[in-house]
Amino acid sequence: MTSHIILTGDRTTGPLHLGHFVGSLQNRLAFQDKHTQFLMLADAQALTDTDHDVVHRNVLEVALDYLAVGLDPAKNTIFIQSQVPELSELTYYFMNLVTVARLERNPTVKEEIRQKNFQRDIPAGFLAYPVSQAADITAFKATAVPVGADQAPMIEQTNEIVRRFNALAGKDVLLETRAIIPQTGRLPGPDGKAKMSKSQGNALHLSASPDEITQFVKSMYTDSKHLKINDPGQVAGNAVFTFLDAFEPDISFVDDLKAKYRKGGLADSVIKQHLEVRLQELIAPIRNRRLELAKDPAHVMQILKAGTARARTVAAATLGEVKSALELDYFS
Amino acid sequence: MTSHIILTGDRTTGPLHLGHFVGSLQNRLAFQDKHTQFLMLADAQALTDTDHDVVHRNVLEVALDYLAVGLDPAKNTIFIQSQVPELSELTYYFMNLVTVARLERNPTVKEEIRQKNFQRDIPAGFLAYPVSQAADITAFKATAVPVGADQAPMIEQTNEIVRRFNALAGKDVLLETRAIIPQTGRLPGPDGKAKMSKSQGNALHLSASPDEITQFVKSMYTDSKHLKINDPGQVAGNAVFTFLDAFEPDISFVDDLKAKYRKGGLADSVIKQHLEVRLQELIAPIRNRRLELAKDPAHVMQILKAGTARARTVAAATLGEVKSALELDYFS
Repeated sequence: MTSHIILTGDRTTGPLHLGHFVGSLQNRLAFQDKHTQFLMLADAQALTDTDHDVVHRNVLEVALDYLAVGLDPAKNTIFIQSQVPELSELTYYFMNLVTVARLERNPTVKEEIRQKNFQRDIPAGFLAYPVSQAADITAFKATAVPVGADQAPMIEQTNEIVRRFNALAGKDVLLETRAIIPQTGRLPGPDGKAKMSKSQGNALHLSASPDEITQFVKSMYTDSKHLKINDPGQVAGNAVFTFLDAFEPDISFVDDLKAKYRKGGLADSVIKQHLEVRLQELIAPIRNRRLELAKDPAHVMQILKAGTARARTVAAATLGEVKSALELDYFS
Repeated sequence: MTSHIILTGDRTTGPLHLGHFVGSLQNRLAFQDKHTQFLMLADAQALTDTDHDVVHRNVLEVALDYLAVGLDPAKNTIFIQSQVPELSELTYYFMNLVTVARLERNPTVKEEIRQKNFQRDIPAGFLAYPVSQAADITAFKATAVPVGADQAPMIEQTNEIVRRFNALAGKDVLLETRAIIPQTGRLPGPDGKAKMSKSQGNALHLSASPDEITQFVKSMYTDSKHLKINDPGQVAGNAVFTFLDAFEPDISFVDDLKAKYRKGGLADSVIKQHLEVRLQELIAPIRNRRLELAKDPAHVMQILKAGTARARTVAAATLGEVKSALELDYFS
């Protein structure tokens, strides 16, 4: 794999959870040694549908999660979106390159509008957020963007804007990007069905206490027909096995457990105990580092300040090229 | 009249003409001694529907028009919109305060979409330009904005955003504004009907040569039934009288002319000659100052640079208050 410039990040609407760990943080940890990675705390984007006090508070929370899992500020540029004003300026100009009808057709936006129940009261900022994303991606000349499969249309939207801009400029000012779609499926909540998410209230945070982990595992669904230990049990759709697949590195051990469970004779309490050990082991060092880091929030903000300054330098260079191509450079 | 902070300006899509002089420049000349006036060269807004090379070129042209008619850079803050990035940042955040449906209902935008024949292909930036205007107006805490009667809904849109923002902030960060709707009607082209405009190709520029003025007056419609000098003539809808009303300060002289014309015995050539004298007198000093100023475009750009710096200071202060109210001030 060639070296990429990657833009990724999270809306700062809540602390991160195990679903983020499996779906994105693990990949970022792998990427940070091979690629140039920009990690964006997307507070401005979060404001399109979340109250500002929630958004503000969670900038620090998400930053703590990043640092606690081992994302290294020396290897990554961790920055706060709203503190890079070049991104809103790019958004402003890109808005002329996309029609309202095209934004309304965007399948990701359509689905989110349905989920959020906006009906006709879609905030203009929400409809325009693919344009804002295009600004974020192109500002850093990102060559790859890790996204869920359902977010792939956003990348296509970005590339349309890139092509329109470059055609307008008469030269390749902006770079097309590509989606990195993770191999791992989405982690469900304890019922094994709905995906883990803050809004579903089924998330196990990366800062979970030992007791919260225990309670979470206890609440997990297994096979509702597996009433007696000696009954054969179902593995498919069994949340505990879904989690073991995600968190138990010893695959043949999990395969053995599955075989025994299918055959009958393996208690739910046993597989849950295995899982709990793994989760306690996984989360303990993250929680501890997080508690340590949380003692000095000013230090974390200092890291974000430095990252934001680096991000601004890159974004300002791109904005300069964009404004120069639009002949908006009167005083230089 | 109490002293106002006024924001006004022009999209930089072409040099200004007599219609602008009557409709806005004259008012600005009166305002500059009584009010704090921000004059915006709206290049960014012009980009929503005009090619960037046209927009770029006309920044200087419009600035020359401003200075040539006597708008004084010591009394006004003359600035280039795109060089005040705070305005796009404000636009970005205000986008969350207005729904797509509300923007689509805006009567001014609706009419312009019809005129420009955008159909379904409305650029997102065009639909959002009332939000951008709200950013411009509130950035300078403008208490008054001179607009045509058809633009009054834009002011209402701004005030809606102001009220929503202040409610969100829990305090009055932004100021509501009010429209100043000029008393004078819109100046028509030489046919006395269609309003004078660049797009209609019926405009007499403020830089018109003596010969262009002569030709313009020659081409003017009078009363198509006034075939013989001694026939009674119509004054209403007679473009020459419309112009005399606008440009001949001696009202009783015009009243006498009208009476004679109605009675019969006054040749079209005579009233045209009066008008031509007035227009030559009006335009000659503007044209001469303009030619003089155009010899040193660097000096004009220096004026715009200084004005833009002043405008940025004001806009940055407002943006700071806005971002602080949204708790987007992590590093201060």
